[in-house]
Amino acid sequence: MGAIITLTTDFGLTDAYVAAMKGVILGINPEANIVDICHTIRPQNVAEAAFVLGTACPFFPSGTIHVVVVDPGVGTERRAIILKTPTACFVAPDNGVLSYVVPEYRVKPRAATTSQHLAKLGPGLEAVAITRSELYCSAGRRVSATFHGRDIFAPVAARLSLGQPPLEFGEKITNLTVFPTPRLHKEANGSIEGRIIHVDSFGNLITDVKSHDLLEAREKITVEISGRRIKGLSRTYAEGQGLLALIGSNDYLEISLRDGNASAYLNATVGDEVKITTHKGGKP
Amino acid sequence: MGAIITLTTDFGLTDAYVAAMKGVILGINPEANIVDICHTIRPQNVAEAAFVLGTACPFFPSGTIHVVVVDPGVGTERRAIILKTPTACFVAPDNGVLSYVVPEYRVKPRAATTSQHLAKLGPGLEAVAITRSELYCSAGRRVSATFHGRDIFAPVAARLSLGQPPLEFGEKITNLTVFPTPRLHKEANGSIEGRIIHVDSFGNLITDVKSHDLLEAREKITVEISGRRIKGLSRTYAEGQGLLALIGSNDYLEISLRDGNASAYLNATVGDEVKITTHKGGKP
Amino acid sequence: MGAIITLTTDFGLTDAYVAAMKGVILGINPEANIVDICHTIRPQNVAEAAFVLGTACPFFPSGTIHVVVVDPGVGTERRAIILKTPTACFVAPDNGVLSYVVPEYRVKPRAATTSQHLAKLGPGLEAVAITRSELYCSAGRRVSATFHGRDIFAPVAARLSLGQPPLEFGEKITNLTVFPTPRLHKEANGSIEGRIIHVDSFGNLITDVKSHDLLEAREKITVEISGRRIKGLSRTYAEGQGLLALIGSNDYLEISLRDGNASAYLNATVGDEVKITTHKGGKP
Repeated sequence: MGAIITLTTDFGLTDAYVAAMKGVILGINPEANIVDICHTIRPQNVAEAAFVLGTACPFFPSGTIHVVVVDPGVGTERRAIILKTPTACFVAPDNGVLSYVVPEYRVKPRAATTSQHLAKLGPGLEAVAITRSELYCSAGRRVSATFHGRDIFAPVAARLSLGQPPLEFGEKITNLTVFPTPRLHKEANGSIEGRIIHVDSFGNLITDVKSHDLLEAREKITVEISGRRIKGLSRTYAEGQGLLALIGSNDYLEISLRDGNASAYLNATVGDEVKITTHKGGKP
Repeated sequence: MGAIITLTTDFGLTDAYVAAMKGVILGINPEANIVDICHTIRPQNVAEAAFVLGTACPFFPSGTIHVVVVDPGVGTERRAIILKTPTACFVAPDNGVLSYVVPEYRVKPRAATTSQHLAKLGPGLEAVAITRSELYCSAGRRVSATFHGRDIFAPVAARLSLGQPPLEFGEKITNLTVFPTPRLHKEANGSIEGRIIHVDSFGNLITDVKSHDLLEAREKITVEISGRRIKGLSRTYAEGQGLLALIGSNDYLEISLRDGNASAYLNATVGDEVKITTHKGGKP
Repeated sequence: MGAIITLTTDFGLTDAYVAAMKGVILGINPEANIVDICHTIRPQNVAEAAFVLGTACPFFPSGTIHVVVVDPGVGTERRAIILKTPTACFVAPDNGVLSYVVPEYRVKPRAATTSQHLAKLGPGLEAVAITRSELYCSAGRRVSATFHGRDIFAPVAARLSLGQPPLEFGEKITNLTVFPTPRLHKEANGSIEGRIIHVDSFGNLITDVKSHDLLEAREKITVEISGRRIKGLSRTYAEGQGLLALIGSNDYLEISLRDGNASAYLNATVGDEVKITTHKGGKP
C-alpha cells in the first residue's frame, strides 16, 4: 500500500464532496491509502479543525500527508499552502488551521491578539504557497472558484504522495497564519484560568490546560467550572460519581460526567472559563 | 491496489449494513479498494441518491465500479442491473438512481411526465439485468428478500472488479428507468424558472439551472427565491454579504448565505422554485 | 492488500479518536486494510455494540481481526482480551461486547439473570487477557488511562495482523463475560414473547425472535406490538400497506412501516415487548 493521505474537512456526510476528492486522488495515485480524520467539523470552524487535526496527526506514521479543507475564504486571496515538518506534510488553506501541528512555532502571547496572524517559520519547517495551477488542473478541467479541496488540495496531495517535491508547486514562503498561543492566566496565588477549547462527542469538555501546567499533586487540585467545584483529579472516566476532572488522552485537562454528558449537564461549551486552584496543605 | 468500488446507500451510519457489504466484497476480491460516496441518503430517496452519485462519479478514474443501493423495491419485480458506460460501471436497482450518470440519454421533456419511465439506451451504453443467482450466492447462503445490497449488488460488483464480463450475470437489456430530464421553463422575455434539486450540508441550495442556461453576463442576472431577489452572480462564497448566488463546483446555479445556512435562513428546500431574470442594460 | 482489521466504537464522528487508532495501526502494519463497522454506537452502550458487531462479522473473510472499543470501564480492572474463534479474531474489553459472536457459548437461560456474567469458553475458542504492555507501547509513549483503543487495542490488533500469536500478549483465560442468552418466553398455547433488541436507521424494530422460533407458516402468524396487531409475515419491505412484520436479513423478526419509520410511528424502542401468536386453522 502506498503513501497515507488523510482528509479533514467541514463537508459533512450527506454530499459527495469528500468522495470527489478521493476520486481525484486515486486518479493520480491509485496506490494512495486515504484515511478520513473528520468531515463533521462545524461549517467554516477553522479553530475546531485545527484542534481535531492536532489530536490525530501525532499518531500517524512519518511521511503522512494531511489534507485539511476548512476554507471559508476559498477562491479569495488567502494562500493555499504546503507545510513540511520533520515528520509530516500538510496541504491546507493558510488560515490558522495548522496552528496545533506547529505549536512550538506559535508566536509568543501578546495581550491584545485574539485573531489569526502571521508567524515566522522556525527551523525544520518548510512552506510553499501553491501557485502553479498547471500542476493540479486535470486535463481539460478548470479549477472551480468554490471547491479547491477537489481542484487544488486533492491533486497536490496526490502528486506529493508520488514524490514530487513541494517547491515544484509554487514559491517558498517564510511565514504561516496561526492562532495566538492559548494564554493561560496564572495569578499570584498560583491559580490558573483556562478555557474550554473542544467538546468531544461524549460531551467531555477539553480545556487548554495541559498536564505540565499543573504543578501540584492531582489530589490537591480543585477545578471550577460553571459555578461547580471538582476536587482532585481522577485517573479514569469510571472513577467516582458525577462530575470529574482528569488529564485526557491528548494531555489536556478535561471535565467529564460519569456515565453522562458533561457539556449538556453543565450547559458548558467552547470558550467557557475554567479555574484551577490548589490547596497546599490538608484537605481542600 | 486493485479496482475501485464505490458505495452509495441510504443505510445510515448506525448499523452494520454497509460493513456487511464491504465484508462480502473483500471476501471475493481482497484487493478491492472500497470508497464510500455517501450512506446518509434520506431513506428511500432515489432522486437524492441519483444527484449525489452524479456529482461524484465524474471524478473517479476510468473503470471504477459504482454500487448504489437505495432500493425501496428490494425483493419485488424491479430489475437489478449492471450499466456499463465508456468510463465506468454501475451496479444498482433499475429505479432511476442512475439518471444523472447518463444525462445525455435522458428522454426529451414531455409536459405531463413527472415520474420515472423507461428510456432506450443510446450508443456506448450496455446494460444487463442480473438474473443468474448462482453467480452471486455465496456458498451455502441464501439471498435474502430484504438486503440485495449485501446478497446481490456487493458480490456482483466484486466479481466485476475481478474482470468477469457483465453479460455473464444475466440478459442484455435495451432500456433503463430514468427520471424525466429537468425541464427549465424559459419564458418569452428570457426569464428562466428552475427549482432546487439538492440542499448540501452547508445549507447551500443547488438548482437545476446550469451555467450554460445563463446566457447573460453574471452581473446582469437576478435570482428570485422565496420572495427575495439576489442581483448578480458572485464568484465565491466569501464575496459580498448575506444571500448570494453563484455557479457551484458541479456547474449548477446555487444560492448561498455568507457565513450561514441559506436553506434554514430562507426556509427553502428541494422542489422550491427559483426564477432567473436578466436586465439587458444598465443596473437592474 | 494485507489483513483486514475492522473497527467498532462509540467514538462518534466529530473527533479524531478513530483516526488516531488508524494512524497507530498503519504505523505498525502499513498493509493493514482497515474497515469501519460502526462508530456511532450510543455512548457506552455495550449491548448495542454487541448486536451491531454480530450482524457484521459473519460476512467478513476468515482471518479478519475485529477491534471493538465500547469501553465504559477503560482504565479500571476490567480485562482487555483477545478472542480467537475458528474464523476470526476479536480484540476488545471483556464486558459482554462479544456476546453475539459466540452465541453457541452463551450460558443457558437462568430466570433471574439480566446482567453480564462469566461464561466458560467452549471448544474451538481461545482467549487471552492482554497484560504485556511492552508489546503495545509505542517507543517513548505511555499508555493513557482513558484511551485504550488507541494505546492497547489498536497496536495489539496491528501486531496480530502481522502474525504475532495471541499468547504472546498475555495469559490464557478460560472464560468470557457475556450477556445472558435472550430468553424467549413460550407459553403453553404456543405464543411467544420476545422484545426489541435493536432499532435500525430506517426505524425498523428488530426483535430477538429468530426464524427458527416461528414454527407456523408465515400467513398464520400474528405479531402484537404497542397494542397493534400485524397479521401474517411479509416477504419484503414493499409488500402491503402500513405496518408489516418480516424476517430480516440477519434472520430476526422485524417490524417495519411501509415507506416510513416504524419506531417513530409506534413510539417503540429497544426493550419493548413483542408477542407472537399463531392461528392453527382458518383466517386469524
